[in-house]
Amino acid sequence: MIQPSRAIHVLPIFFFLFLFLFSIAGASPGWSDQGSLLVRNISDVSQSNFERGGLAHITVAGAVLHGMKEVEVWLQTFAPGSRTPIHRHSCEEVFVVLKGKGTLLLASSSSKFPGKPQEFPIYANSTFSVPVNDPHQVWNTDDVEDLQMLVVISRPPVKIFIYEDWDMPHTAAKLKFPYYWDEEAYYSPKDEL
Amino acid sequence: MIQPSRAIHVLPIFFFLFLFLFSIAGASPGWSDQGSLLVRNISDVSQSNFERGGLAHITVAGAVLHGMKEVEVWLQTFAPGSRTPIHRHSCEEVFVVLKGKGTLLLASSSSKFPGKPQEFPIYANSTFSVPVNDPHQVWNTDDVEDLQMLVVISRPPVKIFIYEDWDMPHTAAKLKFPYYWDEEAYYSPKDEL
Repeated sequence: MIQPSRAIHVLPIFFFLFLFLFSIAGASPGWSDQGSLLVRNISDVSQSNFERGGLAHITVAGAVLHGMKEVEVWLQTFAPGSRTPIHRHSCEEVFVVLKGKGTLLLASSSSKFPGKPQEFPIYANSTFSVPVNDPHQVWNTDDVEDLQMLVVISRPPVKIFIYEDWDMPHTAAKLKFPYYWDEEAYYSPKDEL
Repeated sequence: MIQPSRAIHVLPIFFFLFLFLFSIAGASPGWSDQGSLLVRNISDVSQSNFERGGLAHITVAGAVLHGMKEVEVWLQTFAPGSRTPIHRHSCEEVFVVLKGKGTLLLASSSSKFPGKPQEFPIYANSTFSVPVNDPHQVWNTDDVEDLQMLVVISRPPVKIFIYEDWDMPHTAAKLKFPYYWDEEAYYSPKDEL
């Protein structure tokens, strides 16, 4: 028989075990698959610049972090003067500009190298989608204001080919996989595991 | 020989033909595929409620309207008290709440019918994704404020099965295809064609 004094020590263990099992089983099977709460506060998510000056990136809903398989959503903020690399990907990508303004530089995938890109002004409340495989770059060309965008991609995690300049042949562009934010998520310890 | 007076009548035809060809050929092949300007002002897009009281829907980037094949983005505003039907779909769906608050009702696809749904509060700056095939409904449960959300789905155009109530068997839910906004886009005349 368990002595009363020992039972007092054992009870908290059962209590925390119960809490743990409840937290796993409380949501339906589908939800716990995602390894995260169903409704998340984006303001609580830590931002990172992944050693890229002027960038603040949040994976709002992602393959590596949240188990998404077909779409991924990012919230990205670019400080004045900052920009993405020149890059291409075979997935679809939709931007919704929430704040600020900037320039989309877009070249074609039909020649051997991108060549001089066309420039498109982008601004708050504008939307655009990048044609699959076309090399592109997004700049915050404003002097003062941040450029903030929601970015949607298909077929995550993203496979990005990076160009050093607009004259680099498509075949020489370098695959960066996993990409900055996915890399961090792969290797950083997860609290819930 | 064309008489001077006739030439004056013919010239405008060539001018408009030139303008038309220029507008088709001006963008790169990939961009003109989309049948729309690359950067669009969301504020300029007409909203519709599709005869659903309290809803304002904008297809920000869509399959039927803009040639998207893998992702689609909507901007939806629900007036106080308004809501989606109870429904399910096999595509992924991510919500980003921009304004207001409300409730996500979510049931499981593992029984014969949805049954009593779980309720999740949703609020500005929150995000959630709906597990594939789980019946759900989003309500603006606030008395005053609109609920505005960006909605991302995979594999457009969306195929939605609608339930009359939470006790309707999954097999009895009715497919509504094309869905309200896709239907309108299929059948309304397009200016650019």
